[in-house]
Amino acid sequence: MSGSAPRIVMKFGGTSVGDLDRIRAVAERVKKQKDAGCDVLVVVSAMAGETNRLVGFCQSLSPLHDPKEYDSIVATGEQVTSGLLAIALQKLGVPSRSFAGWQVPILTDSAHGKASLDSIDGAKLLGCMAEGMVPVVAGFQGVAPDGRVSTLGRGGSDTSAVALAAAIKADRCDIYTDVDGIYTTDPRIVPKARKLDKITYEEMLELASVGAKVLQTRSVGLAMREGVRVQVLSSFADGPAVMEGHLPGSLVVDEDEIVEKKLVTGIAYSRDEAKLSVRRIPDRPGIAAAIFGPMSEAHVNVDMIVQSTGADGTTNMTFTTSKSDLPQAINVLESVRDSVQYEELATDPDIVKISVVGTGMRSHAGVASTMFRTLSERSINIQAISTSEIKISVLVAAEYAELAVRALHTAYGLDNV
Amino acid sequence: MSGSAPRIVMKFGGTSVGDLDRIRAVAERVKKQKDAGCDVLVVVSAMAGETNRLVGFCQSLSPLHDPKEYDSIVATGEQVTSGLLAIALQKLGVPSRSFAGWQVPILTDSAHGKASLDSIDGAKLLGCMAEGMVPVVAGFQGVAPDGRVSTLGRGGSDTSAVALAAAIKADRCDIYTDVDGIYTTDPRIVPKARKLDKITYEEMLELASVGAKVLQTRSVGLAMREGVRVQVLSSFADGPAVMEGHLPGSLVVDEDEIVEKKLVTGIAYSRDEAKLSVRRIPDRPGIAAAIFGPMSEAHVNVDMIVQSTGADGTTNMTFTTSKSDLPQAINVLESVRDSVQYEELATDPDIVKISVVGTGMRSHAGVASTMFRTLSERSINIQAISTSEIKISVLVAAEYAELAVRALHTAYGLDNV
Repeated sequence: MSGSAPRIVMKFGGTSVGDLDRIRAVAERVKKQKDAGCDVLVVVSAMAGETNRLVGFCQSLSPLHDPKEYDSIVATGEQVTSGLLAIALQKLGVPSRSFAGWQVPILTDSAHGKASLDSIDGAKLLGCMAEGMVPVVAGFQGVAPDGRVSTLGRGGSDTSAVALAAAIKADRCDIYTDVDGIYTTDPRIVPKARKLDKITYEEMLELASVGAKVLQTRSVGLAMREGVRVQVLSSFADGPAVMEGHLPGSLVVDEDEIVEKKLVTGIAYSRDEAKLSVRRIPDRPGIAAAIFGPMSEAHVNVDMIVQSTGADGTTNMTFTTSKSDLPQAINVLESVRDSVQYEELATDPDIVKISVVGTGMRSHAGVASTMFRTLSERSINIQAISTSEIKISVLVAAEYAELAVRALHTAYGLDNV
Repeated sequence: MSGSAPRIVMKFGGTSVGDLDRIRAVAERVKKQKDAGCDVLVVVSAMAGETNRLVGFCQSLSPLHDPKEYDSIVATGEQVTSGLLAIALQKLGVPSRSFAGWQVPILTDSAHGKASLDSIDGAKLLGCMAEGMVPVVAGFQGVAPDGRVSTLGRGGSDTSAVALAAAIKADRCDIYTDVDGIYTTDPRIVPKARKLDKITYEEMLELASVGAKVLQTRSVGLAMREGVRVQVLSSFADGPAVMEGHLPGSLVVDEDEIVEKKLVTGIAYSRDEAKLSVRRIPDRPGIAAAIFGPMSEAHVNVDMIVQSTGADGTTNMTFTTSKSDLPQAINVLESVRDSVQYEELATDPDIVKISVVGTGMRSHAGVASTMFRTLSERSINIQAISTSEIKISVLVAAEYAELAVRALHTAYGLDNV
């Protein structure tokens, strides 16, 4: 190692700090990094179960509670973990101190309960690190312009970590989770899934948003904009000290850093989809607006949209929402029945969205046709298709989920051999 | 009621906010005060058990933990309660918001874990109240000069409440507890004990420090210095709205406010005493300094001291400490054995201190002789005596505790008839 010490952010989620033994183990892991010569800043979530306990209190007192009070209450979870980890580090002889969001300060907007980060002043944290200390920052929280505590919404600790890494110009942001990296697909379905050493931000964004629940989507977008190199790795595997050149997890980086580009990087699937079909609509301009305008007003997120016109001059509109939005989507469609004049509404929650992701497909044709042929050979009917620059998604019946993912994983040469 | 609205601080301890139902009940009680035309500020403790849970975490990670981290961790208990109560009040239609110590701000010194209050800026709180809101302040906490969270030590919520009452110039500070007031003695020992309508600060200080665990001593001293009228009342009894002229609890006030002064106001007892006797010390000047100097350096609090000189030219020194300080006191005495040259050290934890308290005894002789005669008539041997301007304490064998308290209660005419 030459030059100044590498500067690393280490972020530990709720299960990684789930009890005092886990917190002690995290302290050991941080000490290893410090002993290896890194400057370390740690970001922590609340102990597993704690946020749910506190949210339960709020819900129980009032389902429509004041989000400012909610924030002040649930933010205590991370405050406790940060203090406990600082104590555990001190116990190991590592100088450390905790920071609540307002102490950094981490400034957010006023959207309590789902705030966005405005700015982070890294001066105090860098001062701490310059003195050889490890700052332990409470994730998921900040302070709003009126001086009240704010939270970034659930899963926001990843975003805190990436933003802090940007604020202190860290060389890397390590996100410790309960998996040891990002895989070509879900290893529970495909035992031959391979761990990816590197993946681009764009690919990770597509994988995160289609169901590979490793990193929060928002944090990946932020890492991409700020150029923060993110590593996903396991807080349970007890690997050697993590140093450059020996990365046990998966690195999320800019496309330039990836020399050997693969056609397809990974296969994702999402069961959290429901299909709605609005049938036999008198065909005329403005149907889409008449349906999806009210959908948007009702905050229903609509995904794959397929419009097909029948021989009788009517048209059918099929689209998907998340399962949790389905009842609301049905409400909306019933409220527009008179204006849209459709004859039939059919819904199907037994579907799965399967996505093939890879930056390589930009320059290579044939990725889509491989997908369609592979599914066709297994007699799996494709109900809808949507594509982006680096992703092809299809909707199929839920019962085919595992079969389809496995077949595609093999077809694209992703199997670990 | 005439003039401006009475301004009341209401403080609720851990058992009063022990669960969500209790928090809802507290909200109802606050609403009653508000509906009755009072401006109200609320101070809360952590939910019963919560502080112990958090302290347990710290202890378990490191018995000698950083008090700054300890403060940051345990202060979350009050932060949660204040948010929950604000939600419960809003649910009842009472505008409310929570305040953590740093948000007020409540400034303390740097003695983390047992900080003293420096100053409280009441401006934000008064602004809140002027808008018709009920501020709910997290008790027991503040912020130290370096911007880190501090706590006042256990029981400090009473002190927070009194200090906040002084800061906003409240007409009264109501401390809700699990008893409905201050009694002439412990009603569990003397069923005929009477609730006192009024008691002076001085009397309350003596009663609090000798074992009537209703109000934290430090808060009474502060109330006396700041002239804050304090009412102790039950958060469990469901009385009518508490208004001037109809006070269901006990009022702690300046002596001037009490028209009919009683000779003896109350009888307190403390079992948390241990007696040490250092015997057969060669009599010479400086013995007391040789013993109590090192005691003080070891932070052992020494109470009743009795020195008696024997016929053989040796002297005996008897004194008391708290039971928890006894091992440390023995250590100190053994370390000074060579310099003090005593022959024998005897300890006795089976003792009780019984105190008779009353401002009236300033102007009346005979209080002490009534005490001695009453105990003598029951053949209770007095092992030591100490007196202050408004208090006489005696040390007797623990087995006589109840008998002595009952006999004295009757002798001073305190029995409820």
